Amino acid sequence: MVEKITPMSDDFNQWYTDIIQQAQLADYSPVKGTMVIRPYGYSLWEGVQSYLDKRFKDTGHENAYFPLFIPNSFIQKEAEHVEGFAPELATVTHAGGKELEEPLVVRPTSETIINHMFSKWIKSHRDLPMLINQWANVVRWEMRTRLFLRTSEFLWQEGHTAHKTEEEATLEARQMLDIYAEFAENVAGVSVVKGIKSANERFAGATTTYSIEAMMKDMKALQAGTSHELGQNFSKAFDIQFTDENNELKYPYQTSWGVSTRLIGMIIMAHGDDKGLQLPPKLAPSQVVLIPITPKEEHKEPVMKIVNEINNEIGSKFRVKIDDRENLSPGFKFNEWELKGVPLRIEIGPKDIENGSVVFSRRDGTDDKFSVPISDISKKIDSVLEDIQINMLDSSKKYQEDNTIHVSTKDELIEALNSKPGFVTCYWHENSDDENEIKELTKATLRCYLLDSTETDTAVNDSSQKGNLAIFSKAY
Amino acid sequence: MVEKITPMSDDFNQWYTDIIQQAQLADYSPVKGTMVIRPYGYSLWEGVQSYLDKRFKDTGHENAYFPLFIPNSFIQKEAEHVEGFAPELATVTHAGGKELEEPLVVRPTSETIINHMFSKWIKSHRDLPMLINQWANVVRWEMRTRLFLRTSEFLWQEGHTAHKTEEEATLEARQMLDIYAEFAENVAGVSVVKGIKSANERFAGATTTYSIEAMMKDMKALQAGTSHELGQNFSKAFDIQFTDENNELKYPYQTSWGVSTRLIGMIIMAHGDDKGLQLPPKLAPSQVVLIPITPKEEHKEPVMKIVNEINNEIGSKFRVKIDDRENLSPGFKFNEWELKGVPLRIEIGPKDIENGSVVFSRRDGTDDKFSVPISDISKKIDSVLEDIQINMLDSSKKYQEDNTIHVSTKDELIEALNSKPGFVTCYWHENSDDENEIKELTKATLRCYLLDSTETDTAVNDSSQKGNLAIFSKAY
Repeated sequence: MVEKITPMSDDFNQWYTDIIQQAQLADYSPVKGTMVIRPYGYSLWEGVQSYLDKRFKDTGHENAYFPLFIPNSFIQKEAEHVEGFAPELATVTHAGGKELEEPLVVRPTSETIINHMFSKWIKSHRDLPMLINQWANVVRWEMRTRLFLRTSEFLWQEGHTAHKTEEEATLEARQMLDIYAEFAENVAGVSVVKGIKSANERFAGATTTYSIEAMMKDMKALQAGTSHELGQNFSKAFDIQFTDENNELKYPYQTSWGVSTRLIGMIIMAHGDDKGLQLPPKLAPSQVVLIPITPKEEHKEPVMKIVNEINNEIGSKFRVKIDDRENLSPGFKFNEWELKGVPLRIEIGPKDIENGSVVFSRRDGTDDKFSVPISDISKKIDSVLEDIQINMLDSSKKYQEDNTIHVSTKDELIEALNSKPGFVTCYWHENSDDENEIKELTKATLRCYLLDSTETDTAVNDSSQKGNLAIFSKAY
Repeated sequence: MVEKITPMSDDFNQWYTDIIQQAQLADYSPVKGTMVIRPYGYSLWEGVQSYLDKRFKDTGHENAYFPLFIPNSFIQKEAEHVEGFAPELATVTHAGGKELEEPLVVRPTSETIINHMFSKWIKSHRDLPMLINQWANVVRWEMRTRLFLRTSEFLWQEGHTAHKTEEEATLEARQMLDIYAEFAENVAGVSVVKGIKSANERFAGATTTYSIEAMMKDMKALQAGTSHELGQNFSKAFDIQFTDENNELKYPYQTSWGVSTRLIGMIIMAHGDDKGLQLPPKLAPSQVVLIPITPKEEHKEPVMKIVNEINNEIGSKFRVKIDDRENLSPGFKFNEWELKGVPLRIEIGPKDIENGSVVFSRRDGTDDKFSVPISDISKKIDSVLEDIQINMLDSSKKYQEDNTIHVSTKDELIEALNSKPGFVTCYWHENSDDENEIKELTKATLRCYLLDSTETDTAVNDSSQKGNLAIFSKAY
């Protein structure tokens, strides 16, 4: 079952793939570039969904479902949008045994079809704000694919909203970015930076793209979620107009925002180690695994009695798995649950029972192992899981800080990016050509301008200009 | 907002479409044959999902996700399967700017791709049973489409399982049929018949197809869910083999089962009336709507105070909506919430407050309207919603019984089917040609053989044979 995992330090990419396959998170599918999400991986996605869906609804959004197929002519309507997505489209040309009059595009994202519907539904200021979310699959034909991170088909949610004013749309786009950041940090335990994309990296059709960026354990950046202000680009392209309070016709301001199954890749690469996954307690499909230790046949009954008593006590409060499989050694089981990233392992053996205690083992890099009196179990699990959750975020934050440096000149920037991976911050004056130059010389990109930083200083790429604090890094 | 709904008796089809559009359940999309599920309709689907997903997990199933695109060669592997689905396939021929070497089929159902993966995952009897479910969109190119009932793309769940023995597979297929029936009756409040399909109506590739059939308010049948025994058809076609306890190679026995957004069509057509939807309390997005009645400005404060107090008391226990929109008459609001099918309306006016009571109105065909003391509200809502839930199922059962007749000869069968809609039962000896003849003469089909009926009697289509109790009806 548990095969050797390539050590992270030998080959990070192979380590990533090994973990996904051995922890049975996903598998390759026979269609090039697509993947199968296996039950263990899918249950992580269900954890993402259930948290975010609730937050979306709390903030007034409603779920809906729009068609998978989009008329080719729709994609053409917003000039930048088509330019951005055309190379990645999959096209249905035949259906029901006939060639279609107009080819249908398999949605790469749903701005066009949703805004077509908005133009039917939005007539008056009373119809605004319109706050819609969709959980769906999308297809973007990719040349180089990677499980969870970049696949031809992936699962995601896409929010689409329309507002009376630009200010309202800005607030919405930022609110959703905050929700993504809150999820990443407080639920997934991954430190993220909130930022604004440069024009080079902006979503095709947006006026502003916000993103959250996380640092993986190879020090590369992962864009984990994006939120866009679309201005009136789509409302004009799709002729969405509303009569305002003064009976004047206006185009609404819009946003769109999304996260995808890529988040599972983030969780793997931000927390994993050479033994396997490390899952944050709030998302772990099993938070606790109980392992009976029964060296002799005669131990089985008394040990299983205690195991079942413990399970009865904690089973409704925590997600608990009992591993009472026969013919497998405790060591084998320890390895398997470490591979699967279960945050807390509890061993119950005959000696422990004599002492009225059990052994806790944390799976969060501390590798703490300690005895807990049986009478304290439930309370102790609570505090340990909470501590693991906090510790995972703290470690992630520290790792990011330790691998971020600040530079003051363009030469330093290029040298830093070429000498070792990690985040490099500097003051940068928006300029596409300069950005492309850095990319050519270092393969790193401008991840974002820091949203929470208002300070400016002399730009590294143009000493006559003030720049904003930006992060450069190699990225997924 | 609320326009005239075509009366059911004038034109049932138009009534159905009017309700869907006016209650904002769904809308037509620009791609022929596809639909947009609007938030109110989608929230019904979320209700279906949350109930069934829990039941699937309770019975040991795990969710996973398989690719949308299936290699054309896969579809060809099971002979009956390809024959059944070929005419409805949509095909992707171009992707990423190039023509594909092998066209990809957009999944019409996922037996082929899932069984391909099963052949990689199933090696030993210890890997069985394999119990997988997928929530997904599927595409079947339909010529004549109808919102929710038959659209080119729809949402559904599809269960796929593999078992050591045929007996186990039979138990699984029936268990899932029972779960569907339990949902239809106890949650959706719709009486259903459980049955076995004749060979003519069997799923392409199955050895046995079970279905639940419900009667709509035009007395036509709706197939609301199906569960299939696949025998070893797919395990042989996809070479799924496991070593059993004696180390012999065996092909597993399989099942698949599914329900779709068609269930929303069922709820509309089983419960609705000329005023609009009637939603069962267990599924209604809003179970209770509170309507403040404030004929004069001075009433607003005291009435809203009571409304808010009531909402504070009941808001965490029930799904409650307060309709305090200004400038709309109570009558307008009553119509709108009746259209939307909210099971219980509570009116709170100045006179009611004086009397220390409020007015309850049921939306379940009883149209009961009565006063309830404010102090009893929470308890009374509980019992009224429970009563509505039961009453809806009882009405549905009675309607079905009242419109079902039994016949003893083939001539009677044909006459009954031609004279008025409804279910016609008879003893029938399986015979495809005879079944086709009935269909040609009456447009009705053999819906199913009743699963719970073991009695046999002289067959109406062949007096030399015993027949099983079957239902014939026109159907959606």
